[in-house]
Amino acid sequence: MIVMAEGAAVVGMNSGQEGKMSYANNSSFQKAIASATKQARQEMAAALYRSKGRPASMAIANLGCATGPNALLTVTDAVEAVLAECQQSNGSNSNAVELQVFLNDLPGNDFNAVFRLLPTSPLAATGRCLVSAWPGSFYGRIFPEASLDYVVSSSSLHFLSSPPPLYHDNHQLNRGRIYISSGSPEVVLDTYAAQFHADFSAFLRCRSPEMRPGGLLLATFVARRTSCPTAHDCYIWDLLADALMDMAAAGLVDEEQVHAFNAPYYSPSPDDLLRAIDNEGSFSVRTMRLFEITRRHLIITSSNKVDQQEMEEELLPRQLAIETACTIRAVVEPMMRNHFGWADMDALFSRYCLRLEAYYLDKDTRNKDDITNVFLVLEKKQHHNCY
Amino acid sequence: MIVMAEGAAVVGMNSGQEGKMSYANNSSFQKAIASATKQARQEMAAALYRSKGRPASMAIANLGCATGPNALLTVTDAVEAVLAECQQSNGSNSNAVELQVFLNDLPGNDFNAVFRLLPTSPLAATGRCLVSAWPGSFYGRIFPEASLDYVVSSSSLHFLSSPPPLYHDNHQLNRGRIYISSGSPEVVLDTYAAQFHADFSAFLRCRSPEMRPGGLLLATFVARRTSCPTAHDCYIWDLLADALMDMAAAGLVDEEQVHAFNAPYYSPSPDDLLRAIDNEGSFSVRTMRLFEITRRHLIITSSNKVDQQEMEEELLPRQLAIETACTIRAVVEPMMRNHFGWADMDALFSRYCLRLEAYYLDKDTRNKDDITNVFLVLEKKQHHNCY
Repeated sequence: MIVMAEGAAVVGMNSGQEGKMSYANNSSFQKAIASATKQARQEMAAALYRSKGRPASMAIANLGCATGPNALLTVTDAVEAVLAECQQSNGSNSNAVELQVFLNDLPGNDFNAVFRLLPTSPLAATGRCLVSAWPGSFYGRIFPEASLDYVVSSSSLHFLSSPPPLYHDNHQLNRGRIYISSGSPEVVLDTYAAQFHADFSAFLRCRSPEMRPGGLLLATFVARRTSCPTAHDCYIWDLLADALMDMAAAGLVDEEQVHAFNAPYYSPSPDDLLRAIDNEGSFSVRTMRLFEITRRHLIITSSNKVDQQEMEEELLPRQLAIETACTIRAVVEPMMRNHFGWADMDALFSRYCLRLEAYYLDKDTRNKDDITNVFLVLEKKQHHNCY
Repeated sequence: MIVMAEGAAVVGMNSGQEGKMSYANNSSFQKAIASATKQARQEMAAALYRSKGRPASMAIANLGCATGPNALLTVTDAVEAVLAECQQSNGSNSNAVELQVFLNDLPGNDFNAVFRLLPTSPLAATGRCLVSAWPGSFYGRIFPEASLDYVVSSSSLHFLSSPPPLYHDNHQLNRGRIYISSGSPEVVLDTYAAQFHADFSAFLRCRSPEMRPGGLLLATFVARRTSCPTAHDCYIWDLLADALMDMAAAGLVDEEQVHAFNAPYYSPSPDDLLRAIDNEGSFSVRTMRLFEITRRHLIITSSNKVDQQEMEEELLPRQLAIETACTIRAVVEPMMRNHFGWADMDALFSRYCLRLEAYYLDKDTRNKDDITNVFLVLEKKQHHNCY
């Protein structure tokens, strides 16, 4: 997922050229998040196909598809669910539905890498999919009028269209931090929340004419449970800010540049979401479910040897720190490079990794890598007032 | 434009990584070919918009868009013509049409490079275009049912889906040649013509359900005037075959590999085209115009100094040879690399360039680089028999 600010991309995943640090090779956590909602997404895809009277074609979109294997994951889930439903009723595949699969991300996304996966993908194997890519920011119009039935967006909507305007009279308002922190001044939370409200409202306003009545929008992204963020809601960015300030103290980066950097990111509360949805007016909420996701079980194998379990337990904080640092690096490196202009991020991310390890070793936050996500399902109303 | 043979790409332009030899930097001839039909294409786009009753949206596709600046050229022409027509009737842009622009080429095409041109392209400047890419071979289905109004294809349809099967009992039938030659056995012409007939028929059969009734298909590609090709119809490939045989004589390539290579290319006669169109049945011919294109005027400047004119005249054969070799190299290098497996094509193309220069110096073919193209405009019939 890449987000534009006044024409310039400010959020983009690391491309395939970054190799070991590429998003394609560091997106297993995003895959785990998608897996958590797979069954619900598939049931809703099948139910939508039924409720539309088993139409001859259905259009499925992925907004902020990014690159690598995840780009096709959630649309493949939907396609498989619809085809299974179709086959169940037809008895054979002969009159199967035609599925239009629309992929979206910014023009700078690595779509080539996604297209090269297509010929050998499960989508191609169905023989029923027409796949296309629609480059552009999803905070603007992307698709033709009334062209979409089922829209998924995974780990994308927490990215803002641009960093919030946190300066006043040439003075940076979020000094030493790069996101909301539990100790940050009220203006920081308010400015972030206002930016999210504007962006998420624009997102809904642009999708509204693109979606057919009764169509579903299924989005999963980072969120929080409370209006006032907890310290753990902010630790990912707090520790990265600490690592940046370490770099400044060591003379490796200009401290003013750290003060001036604010991540174009926001993890909304349920209230934030409901306010924007209500304000826009053309969608009703079918599901809003918060859930926690951790990579602990991805790291700990299901070994039944007690020795191995103990060893893994011992190594877990370090493993969690390494994996988290890689995930965050693949996502934030392009935006940091844009702001700080460094060619090599190793110095920053090795500091970050040490701080993450300390966090996972601390008795109060021992191995606590849980991230809250929201699974939000909106239905396009049959009729709604014009905005 | 890239064409697949049983899942493997056999025709693809040189990508941006080839730098000086890339298609993006060696496609000015293809641009000149497109320019020759610009006015007619624009008039037909405007007329189609009028005849459809000035609809709220129109879908414009480019089949075999390739990469580099040409990818957006012909769709931009169409968009500008429709918007001019729209503005003329509306007086203002306020109720302007929404234009859906569909780009197609094989999954291996460099779509990233095309997408990166978009934000600063004339298409984006209109504020009326939704652009998407649809990867896949145009000899198969690409687009949804009845989704297209105006389809262009430029310098692509002379590429076959695969090389024609020119072997019999383990014996190569087109020895020492890589395409039809004026001296080649009848079976070579027949096999090439049959392959073209099957491919072009498949192309029309796949477009038929995708195009709306009354929709236009405007294609420009290499063709010939007579059923039996002339020597000049074949010289581009004849001289490349000669260069390959030189390489074989010098021990730089296995002669059997030359015998086994046949270009997946065919320049049809009007009869070839009419037979396939008639056979498929759902399109009527609006225009079939043959025209010659040369790069002589691209090389000779409009200088009015007699000295300079004479010098340019003197240098012309060499210049034509260099430019032609570059154009052909950008197009055929990937398919030759696929067959011959060389990393470096310099040895082949320097030999080719010398042979081209000799051709352009010969008194019978002095500076004769003219290539015949066909400008074919087909209209999707309102009703047609099912196939």
